[in-house]
Parts: sequence; C-alpha cells; structure tokens
Amino acid sequence: MLASLRAMNAPRIAIFDSGVGGLTVAHAVHAKLPGAHLRYLGDTARLPYGTKSAQTVTRYALQAAAALLSDGARVDALVVACNTASSCALPALKESYDFPVLGVIGPGARRAVAASATGHIGVIGTERTVQSGAYEQAIAALNADAVVHARATPLLVGLAEEGWCDGPVAEAALHAYLRPWLADPTVARIDTVVLGCTHYPALKAVIGRVFAEILGREVGLVDSADAIAEELALRLPDATMGEGRVELFATDALDRFARVGGLFFPVDRAHLALIDL
Amino acid sequence: MLASLRAMNAPRIAIFDSGVGGLTVAHAVHAKLPGAHLRYLGDTARLPYGTKSAQTVTRYALQAAAALLSDGARVDALVVACNTASSCALPALKESYDFPVLGVIGPGARRAVAASATGHIGVIGTERTVQSGAYEQAIAALNADAVVHARATPLLVGLAEEGWCDGPVAEAALHAYLRPWLADPTVARIDTVVLGCTHYPALKAVIGRVFAEILGREVGLVDSADAIAEELALRLPDATMGEGRVELFATDALDRFARVGGLFFPVDRAHLALIDL
Repeated sequence: MLASLRAMNAPRIAIFDSGVGGLTVAHAVHAKLPGAHLRYLGDTARLPYGTKSAQTVTRYALQAAAALLSDGARVDALVVACNTASSCALPALKESYDFPVLGVIGPGARRAVAASATGHIGVIGTERTVQSGAYEQAIAALNADAVVHARATPLLVGLAEEGWCDGPVAEAALHAYLRPWLADPTVARIDTVVLGCTHYPALKAVIGRVFAEILGREVGLVDSADAIAEELALRLPDATMGEGRVELFATDALDRFARVGGLFFPVDRAHLALIDL
Repeated sequence: MLASLRAMNAPRIAIFDSGVGGLTVAHAVHAKLPGAHLRYLGDTARLPYGTKSAQTVTRYALQAAAALLSDGARVDALVVACNTASSCALPALKESYDFPVLGVIGPGARRAVAASATGHIGVIGTERTVQSGAYEQAIAALNADAVVHARATPLLVGLAEEGWCDGPVAEAALHAYLRPWLADPTVARIDTVVLGCTHYPALKAVIGRVFAEILGREVGLVDSADAIAEELALRLPDATMGEGRVELFATDALDRFARVGGLFFPVDRAHLALIDL
C-alpha cells in the first residue's frame, strides 16, 4: 500500500530525442534516479535533427514534446536529450510549459568550465550543434575568459548506431577528424572535451584514447548524460531510490529502435510502443 | 528562334531523392541527356529514408513527387533516384501519374543479371533497401536461377556525405562490413555487385578495391545511375544533344545541400532553391 502510493507519487521525467542517442541520457538518469517514472520519445521518423535547420528542429521539438505529454499526466521535468534541439529549441519549449525544461548544453557547459585548467575547451558534435555556437555562448556566460574550440564529427553518430563503438573504423574516423584539427597549436591547448552529442558517450573510450594518442596526454571528457542526471538528482532527491516505470516510444521503425537502442539502454526492461506524430 | 523552340520542347525529367545522393543519378542523366530539362528535389528535411518504415517512405515519396510537379508543367519521366523509395513506393507513384515513373532497382537488376557469369549477385545498400528484398524480387523475375546476397552497409552514406570517398576510414568501414560477409563461401561466389544506394557510386573505387583485396579477384560493380541514364536515353533520344536547364530543390538546409551535393553534381551550373513540404 505504502509502496504503491510511493509509486503513484514518484517523480515523472519525460525525455525526448531525435532517435536512440538520447537513450544514453535515459540510461544515466535511470541509474541515478531509479525511482522516477521515465517516459522517452525517440522521433525516429524524422531523425537526424543534426543536419536540419534551426526552424525545422524547433518545430519538430515542440511536436515531439506535445506528443510525449499528450495524456495530461503530471510531469516534474522535461529533458531535451538532444544537443541539436537543446541548442535551438529550448526557449520555445520553456515558453510552452510551466515545469522545468532542461537541455543538455547547460549541464555540459558547467562541467566543462569547472574541469578545465587551461581554459581551452573542445566541443565535438553534429554540424547543427557546432554551427549553433550554443556551447560557446553557454561557456562564455560562465567564464568569459574560456576559449571554445568546436569541431563537427557527424559520422560518429552512424558509428554508434552501427554498434562500432570501438575498433578500427572508429579509430580511423577519429584520426581523420581530430588530427587536422589538433594540428592548430591553439586548439591543441584544450584539456577538456565536451561530448556534444548524446550518441558519443557510447564511444567514450576510443575518443579518449585517440585524443591522448594525438596530444601525447589525457584530456577530460565531459559526458552530458552524467551531468544532466546529477542535476536532476539534486532537483528530485525522492527519485534516487525506488523502482520507477520506464516507457519508451518511437515515431517509426520500432524494431530498429529496440535493436540499436539496446546498445545504449536495457530496453528489455521497458515498455515499448510506437506513437504517431 | 529554332533553338528556343527546341528548348521549349525539350524533354523534361523530374528526379527526386531523400537528399543529395540522387545527385549521382542527376549527374549521370545530365551527362547522357544534356538536352533535357532536369528538375531535382532532395527531401533533406526528412532524410534519411533508409531507416524509416515502408509506409512512411511511401507517404514521403508521394509528397515529394507532388511538390516537384506542383507547377503543372509537362513531365516526360519521373525518376525515383532513391533505392529505399524505389523499393517500396514505386507502385503508389505509378498509380498516381500517367507518364513513366522509373525506379533505380529495375535498371540495376537488369544490368546485374546481364553481367553475372556465376549467377551469384551481391547487393549493398541501406537497411531498408536490403530488408525490402526488392533486388531479390527484381533479379528473380529476370533469372530464377540467380542467387542474390544482400548486405546492409549504411555507414557508407555518411562517408560519402563527409567527402571521405576513399582513404583509411572508407577502407576500414568496408573491411568491417565485407570481411565477415564474404567469409561465407557461398557469398564469396559473387562476381557482380549492385551499388544499391545512390550515394555509393561516389565510393566506387574503394569499394571495388576492397572487394578485390578480400576475394583476390575483381568483381563487376553495377552503378544504377549509369543504368537509369541509359534507359532514359533510349526513351528520350531527342535529349541526348542540346543544353537543358537544371533546377535543384531541397526541402531544408540549402547551404549544406549545395556544399555536400557539390561532391556529386556541378551545382554551380544549376538554379538552386528551397521548397516547403
């Protein structure tokens, strides 16, 4: 009786992303706040967001959030688990809802500024995230002296979705992206790198290794999935214990969502369903 | 006067694809039928089609064709320059229009059957194209004894769009895809490989080289862009000379479309514009 009351009152967290990548965020949130009811939407019918314009991404994000919240159930926090959508759709989403809406840019930026000693911070992400300058702005607001160096590394998304999270293809791609970039002596001063795309934590080991191979020293990697889970744990301490329900929705190709998503989240423990957008 | 009359009466070919990949088809068609007026639509707002369900792809294809033909101008042929859409949306498109609608599957299948001596034909393409079994069906209809071996190689799309059309990343990805597949002695009997995705002609050289490295002999590569251009030249012989107009449309992110599309087509010679879907 007490347990079921607690379950009814459990904090409810809604998370959306363009596809399976945000499941790395869902995973970190579920690990840190196992008592929360999680509801996740991957907008697989319209992925990727990263190559689309800011207007289109904002429209998609508003539609995705509306679909995820359409049953009118209480929500304690909405997480935009997609750097592209966080970089352009957050103001429109915050205007639409009266509960907290969290993007992944802010928590990542805060961690990076706290971690960097040289003040040179690297950001790798999709084309749209890098072009948006969202990390530059967020980091500049925290430390006006910090210098941000950003590099689009879009192929890493495909690598993570292929399950090639380490090995020769990932290594070759990272060398192709990072060697010419780090050849610039100013860029080479970075000591902290933000994984600016939710897919990237899946490739964390090889990313760290290739940076170290090229620079001859370790860099700190900032995983926004961890960062956002920590911020949520501070806001919703009741959820750090217990056993919440997990519902995962996708807008298309549920079989692929479950198969590829399984690389990032134990999908077999969740309720899975298709919804239309 | 005669020249302008000829231009007015020039055959008109409409081509659509989910993005920039179909520009390899536009390129082959423009080279073979320079006198035709070409109109191309890349549905960049909703790419890729290759990971989406057949129903969604069919809906998108009908909308893309309708947008491309919305001005009511005469059209002599509509080319579905996208293997994914060809594999599932062709019947619906043919029902909707009274002019010829050509997909890329048929021409590729005919070339492959004509070229193969062993009767073992390989197909590489997106997940959706491979799952659809469209090449198996088309090839079986031409030669019931032919054996088709298909392998999804989705990361090659990202490689082509990154401009990494050869070199270490493309080599590593091809080895990762092809070595385990060709280790099967039945699969290793293939002597002809269909490039079952319009992006792949951009990687033709490295694809041929890695097949040869693994098999210890050359395989024939079937480029459906060439195959479809030849079929169109037979249907529209008037267009094999002259100088037609080229119009390129995209549904989103026109700057990226022009930049990446420039790898596959001389976009600077064309009229470029954004259209809404």
